[in-house]
Amino acid sequence: MQSLQEKASEWSGVHTNDAFAIDETNLYEKLGLQTFINLSTNFYNRVYDDEEEWFRSIFANSKKEDAIQNQYEFFVQRMGGPPLYSQRRGHPALIARHRPFPVTRQAAERWLHHMQQALDSTSDIDSDSKIKMMNFFRHTAFFLVAGDELKNQRQAIACKHATEKPSAV
Amino acid sequence: MQSLQEKASEWSGVHTNDAFAIDETNLYEKLGLQTFINLSTNFYNRVYDDEEEWFRSIFANSKKEDAIQNQYEFFVQRMGGPPLYSQRRGHPALIARHRPFPVTRQAAERWLHHMQQALDSTSDIDSDSKIKMMNFFRHTAFFLVAGDELKNQRQAIACKHATEKPSAV
Repeated sequence: MQSLQEKASEWSGVHTNDAFAIDETNLYEKLGLQTFINLSTNFYNRVYDDEEEWFRSIFANSKKEDAIQNQYEFFVQRMGGPPLYSQRRGHPALIARHRPFPVTRQAAERWLHHMQQALDSTSDIDSDSKIKMMNFFRHTAFFLVAGDELKNQRQAIACKHATEKPSAV
Repeated sequence: MQSLQEKASEWSGVHTNDAFAIDETNLYEKLGLQTFINLSTNFYNRVYDDEEEWFRSIFANSKKEDAIQNQYEFFVQRMGGPPLYSQRRGHPALIARHRPFPVTRQAAERWLHHMQQALDSTSDIDSDSKIKMMNFFRHTAFFLVAGDELKNQRQAIACKHATEKPSAV
């Protein structure tokens, strides 16, 4: 059976080494906190205004300012900055925290579309950092798609057992 | 509804700030790679030899050397060292990767019992590092118990829908 990162690499087209090339440079020190805040604000402004209702609705139960803070705190922590996310919310636990959402391949591509636009229209992000971040985001998005499929498989198995119970009595 | 980290703090008795005090010092630089390898080896030697069969059996489908490597690579990465875990396996995704296992409160306490013994019998770990690590481990163990209960709740809801389908037809 393929592991989560094998699926993520195959589906995203990004090798794990390229995804985690974000660790070769300290992007937090290079870009600074304000750039991360600007990027996440730019990103979620696009998401919450998306003309695609199916995608916009995924975020309907979250406040935009919370979504922005959760995202930039995670990015800062993961890209060499202070552990802002964990100090406030504990472990990232990326797959578990995305469980309430339908993280399909289509949703991953839409997320990445907005992120590419946000990266391109946020000032002070050099092209090397952009490439590193997009590889990381692309791999991570499909890592979450793999996590989502795992959830669906496991639920189906659990329910199969549950529905079979009556006939076993 | 309580969040994952609120449950983790309440059940473990360790505040999130104390759990993530591991970030105040670079424990990897302080202790070095070999100490982390020794700690995880010591820990899993105890686990795989546990007289409690119910606990030992949780690990029965994993090779001991894999369990050791996964653990010390995660510890090294999380405690200030190189991102060994992610380079090989992608995001830690702690809750999702523990899904196959029954992470009960009893299992968390047994895990912590062995880890305390391992910390106490691995040389070159000073008492301040031990306290920081045990707070982190204790909080994390109950964070995973909270994640496990989430899984059980969600499965029950999904299966309730599944079993209700026939009557809706």
